[in-house]
Amino acid sequence: MFAFDADTAVTAGPDGVSAAVLTDRWNGTAGAVNGGYMLATCLRALALSMPFPDPVVVSGFFLKPGSAGPASIRTSVIRRGRTTAFGESGLAQEGQEVVRATAAFARLGDDGLAFTDGAPPELPPPASCAGVPLESFGLATIASRIEFRAASLPGWFLGRPTGQPASSFWMRFTDGREPDLFCLPLLVDSIAPSVLELGAGSTTLQLTVHLRARPAPGWLACRALTRFVRGGYHEEDFEVWDSAGVLVAQSRQLALLVPR
Amino acid sequence: MFAFDADTAVTAGPDGVSAAVLTDRWNGTAGAVNGGYMLATCLRALALSMPFPDPVVVSGFFLKPGSAGPASIRTSVIRRGRTTAFGESGLAQEGQEVVRATAAFARLGDDGLAFTDGAPPELPPPASCAGVPLESFGLATIASRIEFRAASLPGWFLGRPTGQPASSFWMRFTDGREPDLFCLPLLVDSIAPSVLELGAGSTTLQLTVHLRARPAPGWLACRALTRFVRGGYHEEDFEVWDSAGVLVAQSRQLALLVPR
Repeated sequence: MFAFDADTAVTAGPDGVSAAVLTDRWNGTAGAVNGGYMLATCLRALALSMPFPDPVVVSGFFLKPGSAGPASIRTSVIRRGRTTAFGESGLAQEGQEVVRATAAFARLGDDGLAFTDGAPPELPPPASCAGVPLESFGLATIASRIEFRAASLPGWFLGRPTGQPASSFWMRFTDGREPDLFCLPLLVDSIAPSVLELGAGSTTLQLTVHLRARPAPGWLACRALTRFVRGGYHEEDFEVWDSAGVLVAQSRQLALLVPR
Repeated sequence: MFAFDADTAVTAGPDGVSAAVLTDRWNGTAGAVNGGYMLATCLRALALSMPFPDPVVVSGFFLKPGSAGPASIRTSVIRRGRTTAFGESGLAQEGQEVVRATAAFARLGDDGLAFTDGAPPELPPPASCAGVPLESFGLATIASRIEFRAASLPGWFLGRPTGQPASSFWMRFTDGREPDLFCLPLLVDSIAPSVLELGAGSTTLQLTVHLRARPAPGWLACRALTRFVRGGYHEEDFEVWDSAGVLVAQSRQLALLVPR
C-alpha cells in the first residue's frame, strides 16, 4: 500500500465518528504534522458518507498543531442536494479539535463551456531539474514522501533569499502513487512556504482547495505564489497542472508569519 | 441607520442562536438573496461571541438559495487561542440550513514585514466613469444599494459579451456608509459574475474571503477575474483596494455555471 493511502486511512465508527492514526511521515520543517495531510485525512473520512464521489472544494481551518498519534474525526452531512452534497468534519486529538474542514462533493465532468486563461509553468523536463537534498530538511519527513524538482534550487535553501516569494516546480509522490483528487489538498500544502524567500516563516491558518479535474498520471507541474504580506499575515496561492496540461487544483491559504 | 447595518442586524438569543431578518434589498439578478449578504450577516452573528474584533478569514458554503424573511443563526466558538479565535455559524430559514460559515477572528495590525506584488487597478476617477443604469437590473435590488463605476459599460450588459471574464471598477454603498471589514464579504460577491462575458450565468457554491486591512473611507477599487471554466464550474477571484491604495480584501469563490 502507498504511504498516502496507508497514512490517511480512516475506520468508520458509530455516530459518524471515524478513527485515524496520524503518522510522523508527513511532518513539516518545524516537526509538526502537515496541515494538508490532516485535511486530506478529513476528506477521506467525509467521503465515507458523501453520496457523490468527487470533492470539488474543501475549506480547512487549522486550530492548533497536530501530532503523530490517534485522531478521531467527527463527520456530518450538512445537506444532500440533487447534484452537490455538503459535509463537515472535525479532527480531534486528545479531546481537542485540531482541524475543522467543510467540503462539497459532486461528480466532476469535463463537458460544457471551457475557458482557460493561463498555462502550466514552463519547466525543464524533470530529469533536467534539481532536487533538494533530502538530508537538508531535518525534521521535515514529508520531503521523503513527496519529490520536488525545479530548474534551480530555491534561494532561501542556498542561504540567499531572493525577495521574490514565487516559484514553480514538478511534484510527485516518491513511492510511485499516482495523483488523485484526494491527495491534492496535501500536495498544495506540502512545499516550504514562499515567504521563506522574504526571510520569514509561516504557519497556515486556513486553506481552501478547489478540485477542478481528476489528475492524469505522472508528474504535476506546480506554481506557488505570495503577493501580499502585511500585519503578520500572508496569503499563498498554489496551482497544480497535471501531465495532460490540465489545471487540476487551485488553492489559497491565509497564514501567520512566524519568526525563523 | 445605513441599509447594510439595518439589514444584517442580529439579535442574540439563547443557546447561541441569533435571530435575523433577511430583506429583499440585496437580491441578485435571479431575484434570490445575495450570498455575500448572508455571509456578512453570519459574520455579524459570530462577532457577538468572538473575543477578538476583526474577522481575518471567512469561508461560506451556500447550501440552498436564501429568501427574504426571518432567519436563525446558530453560532459556536470552535476554539479560542491566544491570538486567534475560530467560530462557526449556520444560517437557517424555515428549519433548513442555507449557509454554513466558518471564520477566524483576530486583531489586525499593520506592523512587521510588508510585501506587495500588485497595485490597485488603473481606473479613471469615479466622476469620469460610467455607471450602469439601475432600471436595467430588473430584480437585482442590490444595484440600488451598491454603486459601481467603470471606464466603460460591461460587454455583456451591452449585449456583446467580450469573451474576457475580467473587469475592474469602483464600488461604494449608495447611502454613504463607509466600508469596514464586515461589509467586505458582501462587496466581493455583489457584482454580476465575470462569466457573463462568456455568455454564461453562475451560482456560488463556496466563497472564501481574506480580510487583510481595515479599509479607509471612500471609493473602493476592485478587480474581478475568472481564469478557469471547466466541467460546469468556475472560480472567481476578487480584489478590493481602499482609497489609500491598500489591498483590504482578497476573495475566491467556486461557482456552478447555470444556463442563461
